[in-house]
Amino acid sequence: MKIELVNTGSELMLGRVLNTHQQWLCRRLADLGHVVTRQVAIADAGNEIQQAVREALSRADLVITTGGLGPTSDDITRELIAELLGKKLVANPDVLAHIEKFFAKRNRPRPAKTTVETMVPEGALVFLNATGTAPGLAMKIESNPFRADKKPSWLVMLPGPPRELRPMFDAAVTPLIRRECADEIFVCRTLRSTGVGESSVQNKVESDLQPLVKTGLEVGYCARPGAVDVRLTASGVGAEKLVCAGEAAVQKNLGANIFGFDDDEIESVVVKLLAQNKKTLALAESCTGGNVAQRLTNVPGASEVFLGGVISYADSAKEKFLGVRAESLAAHGAVSEAVAREMAIGARGKFGADLAVAITGIAGPGGGTADKPEGTVFLALASAAGVEVKLFLNSWDRATFKDVTATQALEWLRQTLSA
Amino acid sequence: MKIELVNTGSELMLGRVLNTHQQWLCRRLADLGHVVTRQVAIADAGNEIQQAVREALSRADLVITTGGLGPTSDDITRELIAELLGKKLVANPDVLAHIEKFFAKRNRPRPAKTTVETMVPEGALVFLNATGTAPGLAMKIESNPFRADKKPSWLVMLPGPPRELRPMFDAAVTPLIRRECADEIFVCRTLRSTGVGESSVQNKVESDLQPLVKTGLEVGYCARPGAVDVRLTASGVGAEKLVCAGEAAVQKNLGANIFGFDDDEIESVVVKLLAQNKKTLALAESCTGGNVAQRLTNVPGASEVFLGGVISYADSAKEKFLGVRAESLAAHGAVSEAVAREMAIGARGKFGADLAVAITGIAGPGGGTADKPEGTVFLALASAAGVEVKLFLNSWDRATFKDVTATQALEWLRQTLSA
Repeated sequence: MKIELVNTGSELMLGRVLNTHQQWLCRRLADLGHVVTRQVAIADAGNEIQQAVREALSRADLVITTGGLGPTSDDITRELIAELLGKKLVANPDVLAHIEKFFAKRNRPRPAKTTVETMVPEGALVFLNATGTAPGLAMKIESNPFRADKKPSWLVMLPGPPRELRPMFDAAVTPLIRRECADEIFVCRTLRSTGVGESSVQNKVESDLQPLVKTGLEVGYCARPGAVDVRLTASGVGAEKLVCAGEAAVQKNLGANIFGFDDDEIESVVVKLLAQNKKTLALAESCTGGNVAQRLTNVPGASEVFLGGVISYADSAKEKFLGVRAESLAAHGAVSEAVAREMAIGARGKFGADLAVAITGIAGPGGGTADKPEGTVFLALASAAGVEVKLFLNSWDRATFKDVTATQALEWLRQTLSA
Repeated sequence: MKIELVNTGSELMLGRVLNTHQQWLCRRLADLGHVVTRQVAIADAGNEIQQAVREALSRADLVITTGGLGPTSDDITRELIAELLGKKLVANPDVLAHIEKFFAKRNRPRPAKTTVETMVPEGALVFLNATGTAPGLAMKIESNPFRADKKPSWLVMLPGPPRELRPMFDAAVTPLIRRECADEIFVCRTLRSTGVGESSVQNKVESDLQPLVKTGLEVGYCARPGAVDVRLTASGVGAEKLVCAGEAAVQKNLGANIFGFDDDEIESVVVKLLAQNKKTLALAESCTGGNVAQRLTNVPGASEVFLGGVISYADSAKEKFLGVRAESLAAHGAVSEAVAREMAIGARGKFGADLAVAITGIAGPGGGTADKPEGTVFLALASAAGVEVKLFLNSWDRATFKDVTATQALEWLRQTLSA
């Protein structure tokens, strides 16, 4: 089963927006047992879109397009594909009724521009848009004229906004794929590690993985800021067993550094561990400016274990909210072991939390000294057992510095809670 | 000048990571006056990579590949492209010296696996990696055998990690493009608005843009959570004038809702306005959990104007850190006009800030009532002039809710500071 994605949008080719559809759709399709073989992005231009769709249809059993179904003048995918396939566009009364209802619910008149969204290629399946107006469309192209073997292909067209595309894919496209495309056995497992570099990760695991690779296991490594993923995949009969054996080999050699699997983010692992251990957490963030809190509170249920935090950007905030002593700030500076320690103790005491993490450092650009270069950061962890402080040197750009530092804080919490 | 990108990586096709290279490279190239015509992503597999590069070379004057140059076993792009072009790989002493130095600086022995990174296709330009080990590579393919017209093409190969690719592109590829490819006149301007829906934005601006479109202006609209971008582009002689005229037309009809241009994020606009107005800011975030602070502190220089914030997730934190009265919490609940008001007053007073914003709401999933459904949020803004409270209903998933709500808070600050 060959699947290709065609993402349309001039904003993509000009680099004005990030294409999140590729990852999301590839992930969903992998979960259904299908690997996307190719993804293409092109501008909202007639020849580009028709050429890309024609090429994709010449190779693939399923082609999914995204974007270009909306109400504005640069939304031209629907018209171009109908033309490519020689289909007429016809008004669809269900879509019209749906759009009327959409605007009535919001007490707004239906904009005349949305009429174009009711036009549908003859014979197409229509997916009403639960979170917007433009419908999705699907067509089975029998004796596909673009394929040498004339085999049929499916063409699915989805709207561009992620909040419309995602629920529509789950509600309408998943059942279509299940019905029309035989599931293949495909197993993928990602083990996520932190604290070890990419080539060291491979050094640690490869000799035990080698025999499995010879019998069909595929291994991939992916380096991220502060983390390395090891990905194990296999297909066909025996895939599950092969991936399980691979997982055991990785666990054996890298166990302590593995913080999670597949979709796990370190923040969701920490929230789960806090809940399991019935512990509460407070934060005192300076240089990460809320990065840890923002990530923790993305996890549903975080409010059960996370009491809150202080973003003590100004020194006066460190004193007033966390009880850091003016003498410590004067003697050691805001970025120091002493201040990190007092921030953590203060946060733990004032929030009445079981655990508190404090972060103080120099994110840059600028602000470094010979003693404390840009990237210097002190982490402190306070618990009933006392306070510990760790020093890191995270020499990255500002945004990466914040991410890497926040990950180190979360990893420390994970290890403490798993001990 | 035709440019194509080829992103390699099985992790991309399995949806395990987000492809940020497309946006970043397209943006940089657009700034140099070049529009990327096609971007393709394929797995780390021999036939896929060679086929995609061959096809790109058959059409484009410049092909840029990303990924597959690292030290692990799935890094195969270098070997496959050398094979495709019939080039031998030869050991490069400069690269070896660079890698030796990289590890010496970190007091670590050079892993043997990195030897593969010193192998370079014969005759290739080598870009040493300022932030990693694998070098970038560039080759001019004279009388390109894959093009019908045998015109030369450039092939540039960049390493996958963004923190390596980005500085390398700026330091080495930008000058190469400037030298080898004639600059074309291409002007692109994006006006970023908030508070108006996508089709309403077009309704407001299109009649004044129509005459300009007839003379070559291209207009695009892009909807995001809480924002709509209007993109104006033109090329050739007169492009600058055409885009300026378009900008004036959009400003005339949408002025109050435009928060910025091109790369402007609303948080960077707010930091700039705070600095210009010599005002300081404090935050009291409940349901956004640090989203506003995390965004503001991504802006270099934020520490000049942002004093800090309290993430008052627990009710007790609202009382202790912000002085919210227990009676207000009991009488109205944490998500109420009264509590929002007290949070803002408390944050302003305790931080000693000129302005304070407070946010309290129900992010979901769960926690809504008939009175206060999921998505209910109260924003309060305290200043020397007093406190104002606004009520919003942001019915989105948890992450979008946080983004949209934080954007509303930042927009309120922007309007207050621009008034």
